[in-house]
Amino acid sequence: MFKDGSARLWAFIFAVYWVSFVTYFILWRSYKHVSNLRAAARSTSDVKPEEFAMLVRDVPVPPPNQTIKDSVDSYFRALHPDTFYKAMVVTDITKADKIFQEIEGHKHKIAHAEAVYAESKIANRPEGTRPTHRTGFLGLIGKKVDTLEYCNEKIKELLPKLEDEQKSTLSEKQQRAAFVFFNSRAAAASASQTLHAQMFDEWTVTEAPEPRAVIWTNLPRKIYDRQTRQTVVYLIVFVTVVFYMIPITAISAVTTLEQLRKKLPFLKVVVDQPLLKTVLQAYLPQIALIVFLALLPTLLVFLSKSEGIPSQSHVVRASSGKYFYFIVFNVFIGYAIGSSLFSALQKVIENPTGIVTTLGSRLPGNATFFLTFVALKFFVGYGLELSRLVPLIIFHLKRKYLCKTEDEVRAAWAPGDLGYNTRVPNDLLIVTLVMCYSVIAPLILPFGVAYFALGWLIAKNQVLRVYVPIYESNGRMWPHMHTRIIAALMIYQATMLGIIGLKRFYYSTILAPLLAISLIFAYTCHTRFYPAFAKTPLEVASQQLKETPNMSTIYTAYIPACLKPEKLEDVEVFEDAQSRTTSRAPSF
Amino acid sequence: MFKDGSARLWAFIFAVYWVSFVTYFILWRSYKHVSNLRAAARSTSDVKPEEFAMLVRDVPVPPPNQTIKDSVDSYFRALHPDTFYKAMVVTDITKADKIFQEIEGHKHKIAHAEAVYAESKIANRPEGTRPTHRTGFLGLIGKKVDTLEYCNEKIKELLPKLEDEQKSTLSEKQQRAAFVFFNSRAAAASASQTLHAQMFDEWTVTEAPEPRAVIWTNLPRKIYDRQTRQTVVYLIVFVTVVFYMIPITAISAVTTLEQLRKKLPFLKVVVDQPLLKTVLQAYLPQIALIVFLALLPTLLVFLSKSEGIPSQSHVVRASSGKYFYFIVFNVFIGYAIGSSLFSALQKVIENPTGIVTTLGSRLPGNATFFLTFVALKFFVGYGLELSRLVPLIIFHLKRKYLCKTEDEVRAAWAPGDLGYNTRVPNDLLIVTLVMCYSVIAPLILPFGVAYFALGWLIAKNQVLRVYVPIYESNGRMWPHMHTRIIAALMIYQATMLGIIGLKRFYYSTILAPLLAISLIFAYTCHTRFYPAFAKTPLEVASQQLKETPNMSTIYTAYIPACLKPEKLEDVEVFEDAQSRTTSRAPSF
Repeated sequence: MFKDGSARLWAFIFAVYWVSFVTYFILWRSYKHVSNLRAAARSTSDVKPEEFAMLVRDVPVPPPNQTIKDSVDSYFRALHPDTFYKAMVVTDITKADKIFQEIEGHKHKIAHAEAVYAESKIANRPEGTRPTHRTGFLGLIGKKVDTLEYCNEKIKELLPKLEDEQKSTLSEKQQRAAFVFFNSRAAAASASQTLHAQMFDEWTVTEAPEPRAVIWTNLPRKIYDRQTRQTVVYLIVFVTVVFYMIPITAISAVTTLEQLRKKLPFLKVVVDQPLLKTVLQAYLPQIALIVFLALLPTLLVFLSKSEGIPSQSHVVRASSGKYFYFIVFNVFIGYAIGSSLFSALQKVIENPTGIVTTLGSRLPGNATFFLTFVALKFFVGYGLELSRLVPLIIFHLKRKYLCKTEDEVRAAWAPGDLGYNTRVPNDLLIVTLVMCYSVIAPLILPFGVAYFALGWLIAKNQVLRVYVPIYESNGRMWPHMHTRIIAALMIYQATMLGIIGLKRFYYSTILAPLLAISLIFAYTCHTRFYPAFAKTPLEVASQQLKETPNMSTIYTAYIPACLKPEKLEDVEVFEDAQSRTTSRAPSF
Repeated sequence: MFKDGSARLWAFIFAVYWVSFVTYFILWRSYKHVSNLRAAARSTSDVKPEEFAMLVRDVPVPPPNQTIKDSVDSYFRALHPDTFYKAMVVTDITKADKIFQEIEGHKHKIAHAEAVYAESKIANRPEGTRPTHRTGFLGLIGKKVDTLEYCNEKIKELLPKLEDEQKSTLSEKQQRAAFVFFNSRAAAASASQTLHAQMFDEWTVTEAPEPRAVIWTNLPRKIYDRQTRQTVVYLIVFVTVVFYMIPITAISAVTTLEQLRKKLPFLKVVVDQPLLKTVLQAYLPQIALIVFLALLPTLLVFLSKSEGIPSQSHVVRASSGKYFYFIVFNVFIGYAIGSSLFSALQKVIENPTGIVTTLGSRLPGNATFFLTFVALKFFVGYGLELSRLVPLIIFHLKRKYLCKTEDEVRAAWAPGDLGYNTRVPNDLLIVTLVMCYSVIAPLILPFGVAYFALGWLIAKNQVLRVYVPIYESNGRMWPHMHTRIIAALMIYQATMLGIIGLKRFYYSTILAPLLAISLIFAYTCHTRFYPAFAKTPLEVASQQLKETPNMSTIYTAYIPACLKPEKLEDVEVFEDAQSRTTSRAPSF
């Protein structure tokens, strides 16, 4: 019935369609599910400060006889006469924060020194040794002082300075951004979705980020600044993804052993040993690459932060997206094509159908490598994740040599955040790999299934019992992952088109519509589900609250730590950058 | 200093940059200007019904014991307790409208017959001839009746039927769409921009179109229906643009003279004359083409309406966009490439840089043709436009043979709307032509300048003194034109890249960044100015009104003509599909 081998190719085509449609189904259901979870989480009757607030950026320059605070106040009171509660102008807290951190550092030092002193009293003799340290760089140089006395003195010196700085910050360092508070959740949701100004570059409003996720330094950036930064960052990331081998080669060319030896003479002992020298000489470029790859997530977080994004959770999303494209392009496509991505790009521009053929011809040969890759991730990755071996060793080292007080031990033990910015792209890479090899090397499937089945259990355990989230985005990460899974699916579909096309199988074009279907599917999902992630539906915001919200608590949540007066009753000090409550009684 | 001819090419490159940047400047300023005009027009203190209303579509199926009206009412009263005024559920008016149109037709006939009767009294004898007509198809067959008696009887018959139909329409034919009215402009603006439901396919809200621009039949279409229709329409338009020659060739193949002669024997007299036969045989395909091109705008309006767009002005925008792509692809690129667009597309997919080369090599040869085209438009088009020769002839014919009453004469004289759907794309084609030939055949420039300079004067005159707008969109057309001018600019830049590249001029790639700059410019303009066109800024909506708005007048403006009771005091009859006013007094 079929010509030689064509039955197998038909089965391939059928399998690709089957995998695609199962993926669509799962993606659709997941999006719906996450969307419902998000609605449920957001419509709880707990009072969350961010649901009463709205972030305003690009506040125009006020007329000369007005402060920024006054102009923000009068603008929003006029537009929302019934629901406006108060506004808080963002201030430049760099200096106040520096003093505050210094005081905190001294407090920490005192606690540590006291613990050391108490210990020494027990160990040595009844009076013990008063702990000392040097005031210079890293405590290595400078005058030797008594830690307890010195730090107490410093704190006494700094406290009035902080108070002065707080006052001047609030009155003189107002920035052109503000948080506006409303007396109901529905009013805040509605206001943050409404275009306020006719001019695009004034009074841009968005939903307020959570207080703990706010990146204060990014808030006052103007719209032009933000867009320029974004463009520059995208350019840098594009260049990094495509040409990342160039700087590494350059660096490893410059940092030959000979030059390192000249510049850092203390390395001589190591470098002059013949065995070590040979090894180092051979692996220096690889070491440079490993160091680069280890630093990449941090670099991407830094770059995303530089875009002017107002919240930490958004920064993590942005850098996770960048990292995904980096690993897909360089690990997956880069390895598969086997040449630098740059020359591949050139080929794509000259002959766009060629990339599909190239991928199709190279991919099957690499199946073993990627199979091993997934298996390794499965066997080693989860072991490390569950045992948390590295953090355990670090904790014990810290406890033995550094930690003296209870607080320090607790800080050393703290597992931190889940680390979405590397975890998500790495899992998405596995999705891409498993999908792309699912038909041509089906042995990858059990590993893939096991990876995600076990991963589900382990991640659930780690999330519930180990990691401590530093902010809550209510599933805001999902749309982002969804888009990238579809991108992975489309790479898979294009690859299969190439593989089957290479066999000179006339019907391989039957797969081409799948790419269009994927695009339509992505578009449909986006128009349907995304709005409820980007905005708060009024239905959700209008849910009854369990308790009458305490507006002043909500307001205080947004005061940065360094501006909070020592006693909370002094909140009235903050009057300078805040506005008076509306004369009307708030109506809930 | 320069090699042979390279000075000229450098001048070309410089000119392209110059033209591009001047265009950017003009486009930016125009967008800003139109945006300001729009704000000014929208912030006038006149009461406009559409500014107090919001269109709600995809109303979910109400629980069995509730009507759609009740569910709309309770939903919006709960979410906007202070600002909700009333809701009006859209009803299926097809049947009521049919009866209403019949009555109007009879009324019109009576007026006409009375005028004819009065004339005949003067002309013939004191008693005159009572006008008669036949009741059958087009008044050609059927029983002969006395027009005045017959029509009066019919109206008497139909009026109670209309009243019954009105009642049943309001109570039983409620559709899942509604207009919601608010008691202030700011509340309506804010509500129409706020996401209401968590589920994407329920309670979708948009700003209300003007009452006279509403397309009632499109309002109740569900979101799935709308998107499917849109996809299908886009597909049809794409196929029409790319393959439009195929059906025309097919039609002209089928309709050879011989076959026409067989099927329509009465054409024999014409067809059998040898001279006419030769001419017709030669030009039949061209005639088919002309007929197709003449019908195209109507077809595109029909297609755009089928998408499920809720307002007339949006339909005109949508069909104008489709028409632009049709004429640019077929008149400009089609003529320049000189082959069917389909084979050109194939080339583009195989070798995307090839299109630039092809355009570059073919374009200069066609300069004369397009120069003549622009000149012809200039000399003939404006003459026809100003003199309105064709409408004038039609008017005089109508007045002589058809019009009897004052109303009929007025209707015959009415100049109608400006006809944006063909005027805008045609002018944009001239923009494209003038830009593309500006450097290689600069003689086109004076014609282009003259075309638009004179066009400005003439269009201003025609708009102010001749045409009567049937709706007001406050400059909503501009963003649409802006995008297409940038598309034209990019065609120009790509063409110039091709033309200079063909001369084997090494530096021609200097032009490539212009394409990226155009894209960035388009994106920037869109993010900056478009929001104030798509949404009403709260600043604008919060302007004080001259007078206290009469909410019931605003409400009545949205009642379709066929549902309006004969006497306006009977508005209370409409209670079935409307909701009662909120108990609170409206606050402005």
